[in-house]
Amino acid sequence: MNALRHTISLVSLGTFQLVRRTRGPHARGFLLGTGLGLASFSAVTYAHSAEAVDPKVNGVQMNTSRFMAEPITDSKALLGDKENMRHRMEILIMEIQAEFCRALEAEENCGQKFKVDRWERPEGGGGITCVLQDGDVFEKAGVNISVVTGSLPPAAVQQMRARGKNLKEGASLPFFASGVSAVIHPRNPHVPTIHFNYRYFEVETAKGEKQWWFGGGTDLTPYYLCEKDASHFHQTLKSACDEHDPTYYPRFKKWCDDYFRIKHRNESRGIGGIFFDDIDSPNQEAAFNFVSSCARAVIPSYVPLVRKHKNREYGNNERQWQLLRRGRYVEFNLIYDRGTKFGLYTPGARYESILMSLPLHARWEYMHEPKSQSEEGKLMKVLKNPKDWV
Amino acid sequence: MNALRHTISLVSLGTFQLVRRTRGPHARGFLLGTGLGLASFSAVTYAHSAEAVDPKVNGVQMNTSRFMAEPITDSKALLGDKENMRHRMEILIMEIQAEFCRALEAEENCGQKFKVDRWERPEGGGGITCVLQDGDVFEKAGVNISVVTGSLPPAAVQQMRARGKNLKEGASLPFFASGVSAVIHPRNPHVPTIHFNYRYFEVETAKGEKQWWFGGGTDLTPYYLCEKDASHFHQTLKSACDEHDPTYYPRFKKWCDDYFRIKHRNESRGIGGIFFDDIDSPNQEAAFNFVSSCARAVIPSYVPLVRKHKNREYGNNERQWQLLRRGRYVEFNLIYDRGTKFGLYTPGARYESILMSLPLHARWEYMHEPKSQSEEGKLMKVLKNPKDWV
Repeated sequence: MNALRHTISLVSLGTFQLVRRTRGPHARGFLLGTGLGLASFSAVTYAHSAEAVDPKVNGVQMNTSRFMAEPITDSKALLGDKENMRHRMEILIMEIQAEFCRALEAEENCGQKFKVDRWERPEGGGGITCVLQDGDVFEKAGVNISVVTGSLPPAAVQQMRARGKNLKEGASLPFFASGVSAVIHPRNPHVPTIHFNYRYFEVETAKGEKQWWFGGGTDLTPYYLCEKDASHFHQTLKSACDEHDPTYYPRFKKWCDDYFRIKHRNESRGIGGIFFDDIDSPNQEAAFNFVSSCARAVIPSYVPLVRKHKNREYGNNERQWQLLRRGRYVEFNLIYDRGTKFGLYTPGARYESILMSLPLHARWEYMHEPKSQSEEGKLMKVLKNPKDWV
Repeated sequence: MNALRHTISLVSLGTFQLVRRTRGPHARGFLLGTGLGLASFSAVTYAHSAEAVDPKVNGVQMNTSRFMAEPITDSKALLGDKENMRHRMEILIMEIQAEFCRALEAEENCGQKFKVDRWERPEGGGGITCVLQDGDVFEKAGVNISVVTGSLPPAAVQQMRARGKNLKEGASLPFFASGVSAVIHPRNPHVPTIHFNYRYFEVETAKGEKQWWFGGGTDLTPYYLCEKDASHFHQTLKSACDEHDPTYYPRFKKWCDDYFRIKHRNESRGIGGIFFDDIDSPNQEAAFNFVSSCARAVIPSYVPLVRKHKNREYGNNERQWQLLRRGRYVEFNLIYDRGTKFGLYTPGARYESILMSLPLHARWEYMHEPKSQSEEGKLMKVLKNPKDWV
């Protein structure tokens, strides 16, 4: 039985974390793109009811309790058509979300847990937003999945045409989008911020043909540069890419450096990683496997850095520098990030899921510039001129 | 003698405040619009040299020491053609900047002063950026003037055409822009933030005719609502408007409410004020007098509120709420403000002057919503549904 129950207040159910009611209005829009902006909408929160039982199809049982909340798509349907790429992607992002959230919770020294908001979207689909705020290791950590269907307005079709998609101009087209995205802002300035996003997209052309593609990426934003960490991070991503195509890492590393640029300051948000979009070759199976490898590389690329630095001592100078760099993070996300901009301009967007990427605290000082020989200055050199790490 | 001297390091000269060297690269772009984005560029800082003597033209002496720095236009030229609107506007904005900075300094309990950056722009003109940071009353206060000439690129001409200006499409047109803008973020959550901007614009059409107009506005962003303060603020602006045209205040109050809207949250940045653009009637003299009245209304509209609340007690709850609202301020400025967006997309913009409007600290909490009966909730009601104050 797949009963859903509307939770009225803060409540903890079964194997799930604390669930609370989403306060925003019902959604009317849709979101695409990178970052946490992917398909995020406001809706009331649902959770496993106490009576919920895992579904069984043809004797095969799906253990949904390993996820952060019940899947967006009916579990029987997910199990019933396991070859469907929509379903495979939904199961992948549910797994990635749960594994990442639990890996982060395991690093918290005092047992802080993610809060889980499961929301539905009247036009179709929904999402699960997990946030851990004010932890002792993670100041603000957001991990979001969404699975939405709807109609792509002409402006969005136009944006895709500009990217080279062969879609009819001026038409509204049916679409499906699913993805996982996360931004983790740790408290200790020696632990870097990580962002990742992996997504699958389908759009139906005016002739009724289906186009599909994958996009995504993972990138790191340290406050203090540790070259060994940077190499480990990039090497882990490179290994994930190399399994599939030796040209991927160099191409997607450069794409990442180009994308995460704070243009008005002529500096990068962080030390990069990989970034790609419109992946539809050599075939759907291979593309899915590539995206799976990248998504599964997140934990080994990042969690060792958390463990290594989370208990290091730091003082007020390091904290103030971290807050200044978080101000730069806000600048990038609000001014340049495609997903955030596109999302926020969409009427009825679930802005709480989109803006979950913003840090708990940020700082702006007029004319701040670190000394070039300082640790802060060394980071700036790499942000001004991205370098190769592997 | 109007000698200029290139200051190499932090130095205090004559009656001027501390001057320091601007670190950014030389400018290549230009900026227009509202907020601090108006015509701000990076350049090396100049200041009165020790030998500088006030200029005398036809026996009339200009006392430039009352300004925050030497005017951008040569003082002899300013004095020599006093009927020229460019010169009248430059003198007005220099006076407004100096009077406002000194009125704020007078409110500081421990004598903090504005730092002054005077910068020039290779293409013509320059500006004076005054910042008081980490004061005991003002956490971050920025007051900027700029006076620039240059060539308006076709994209900017197109933007003006969209606003109804009769300009030739696809052409680069010579322009002149000058203005004063300020954003003041006090430390005490009971003291509101104020923003104002007054500007004059000239553009030469392809036929060699000159078009000119004024724009501007003043608006208030309280963290706690004091209805008496809100009425005082709006009444002061209304009186300034009413001297010139009884239709101005109601029209420009509504324009302000419409403009400073954080659309994705469906709430206003603050409790409004006045906002206008493209003022070119009934004649240049009357339009200038109107703008002068508005600019001179800033101090009486705001400084009494600072004095009234600056020493009030407050706790951590009030501080955290103030920081959350400052996060909303950042959202508006980086996502919606025309001047900021236009400025930051301009290559070579003096981003330090544009982003001076951002608070020293801001905070983003996931799903924060104050109780409707709390003081914070009362403010939110007014931000959701702007009301009339006079």
